[in-house]
Amino acid sequence: MIDRLCVIGVGLIGGSIAKAARGLALCREIVGVDADGGNLAEALELGVIDLGFDGGQPGEIAKAAQGADWVVVATPVGALRRVFEELRPAWSARAVYTDVGSTKQSVVRAVGQVLGTVPANFVPGHPIAGAERSGVAAADAGLYRDKRVILTPLPETDGAVLRQVEAFWAAIGAKVSLMTPAHHDEVFAATSHLPHVLAYALVHMLGRKDEQQEIFQYAGAGFRDFTRIASSNPRMWKDICLLNRRQILPLVEQLRLELGELAALMDEGSAEPLLAYFTEARDARQRFLAQSTPEPE
Amino acid sequence: MIDRLCVIGVGLIGGSIAKAARGLALCREIVGVDADGGNLAEALELGVIDLGFDGGQPGEIAKAAQGADWVVVATPVGALRRVFEELRPAWSARAVYTDVGSTKQSVVRAVGQVLGTVPANFVPGHPIAGAERSGVAAADAGLYRDKRVILTPLPETDGAVLRQVEAFWAAIGAKVSLMTPAHHDEVFAATSHLPHVLAYALVHMLGRKDEQQEIFQYAGAGFRDFTRIASSNPRMWKDICLLNRRQILPLVEQLRLELGELAALMDEGSAEPLLAYFTEARDARQRFLAQSTPEPE
Repeated sequence: MIDRLCVIGVGLIGGSIAKAARGLALCREIVGVDADGGNLAEALELGVIDLGFDGGQPGEIAKAAQGADWVVVATPVGALRRVFEELRPAWSARAVYTDVGSTKQSVVRAVGQVLGTVPANFVPGHPIAGAERSGVAAADAGLYRDKRVILTPLPETDGAVLRQVEAFWAAIGAKVSLMTPAHHDEVFAATSHLPHVLAYALVHMLGRKDEQQEIFQYAGAGFRDFTRIASSNPRMWKDICLLNRRQILPLVEQLRLELGELAALMDEGSAEPLLAYFTEARDARQRFLAQSTPEPE
Repeated sequence: MIDRLCVIGVGLIGGSIAKAARGLALCREIVGVDADGGNLAEALELGVIDLGFDGGQPGEIAKAAQGADWVVVATPVGALRRVFEELRPAWSARAVYTDVGSTKQSVVRAVGQVLGTVPANFVPGHPIAGAERSGVAAADAGLYRDKRVILTPLPETDGAVLRQVEAFWAAIGAKVSLMTPAHHDEVFAATSHLPHVLAYALVHMLGRKDEQQEIFQYAGAGFRDFTRIASSNPRMWKDICLLNRRQILPLVEQLRLELGELAALMDEGSAEPLLAYFTEARDARQRFLAQSTPEPE
């Protein structure tokens, strides 16, 4: 059992971790940190955390982490460097540290730079759970049930600490996978970051057109689903796209070539190759559906 | 009241029209045509139609339309030319003709070429309703409730016939809009055809990668929604993409440029412009949501 759980960033992701831990009595006490005063007050009011610290004030993060035996960093990835700088003076060799950032090489790099080395008791992590809503009000103890969580330990990571973090996620319902930070970033550039870039680009392009009102007016359910991720938090995605750009940019270029080839098939009026192309794509998506967690389709 | 409604193509779209018309007693009798014998038998068995004709056999479409005072062509757009060739010998100046094709200039062109002129009693139409499922088994009398239907009459279209078609769609719950065929094709190239092309291209590209299994395995709900339209019927989309390529291709090219500009922002590490870009895109999608039919988001 965790004695004092410190959650830095009590939004949807961190708040849901706190609620799940509390609901299953995995910890005695929960300390929360948030730079957004309104959100912090709400987290206290809702009983998601027992004690609150203003993450915007220098020194408050260290105070919050003081005496905690578990520290979960759940801020946007863009804020991670500053959080670890604040954590440095209070760093404890006996506590467990983990994070939830969507890019992992950047986190490992930042932690290494700030602390001189990546500590054996820090386990980089990334839960794959919805992020379109935000704030502690949207937090849900069941958010991680049957969701995947990727942990990206390093060779120097302490095996016992890793097992504790694995057990924590498993306890709150998640399915844990391990991979290297580099491999994580490659896979998620393809499966998550590239689709976000595409959705943002499409909506950005259509939203500038003179006839945008009409375009949006006649858009159906397909458009709604396709563009849902363009409603994601722009600041969070700005950070992800910059931090993982070395993995994302080659994929964007590849997709531009792919679109060029598809356009050529259309331009030539190549019916059979076009049918084969769409059929291959449809079949690929059916393979995806077959191996993803079943959800209503 | 319609006496004899002839539905050519008794799939999801045509079958739902038949069920809705029957449910509201808008017609006395429903004749169905389908080239798929199994689907036709199912339509008869389910009572969606009263009489069935094999659309794959020459002459059967004309037989089915004989004596009908309403003819709805609900085949995939790629089959429309042949359907109108078959309809020609039985064409009645007293009947109402309409279709549901996703591209409208191509339909008007095909009808004009086959019949010498576009008849005043033909009203081109396009209901905006889900098309991922297919077949008469998926037909639903409520499919068009609160959905948009675009009618694209020509200057020569008979006003009285147009009003009848408008009234029919309104009766089964749809919201009818009028626009020219050219404008329709431009709007839907942006709002529907381009997103389909993108989704197919992305899944096609990822599905060819060595690590595709892993990519798909870790894909979350965002990827699922984003790629849902890549599960659409490849044959139908091959037809749409070829028939409306003059409108779609410039948009694909524009999107490739857009992606190039977005990639440049990422490559340069331009944090503020990137944040502004994503924020504009997110705001555009919120405008879309604000004016589209409310659905759970």
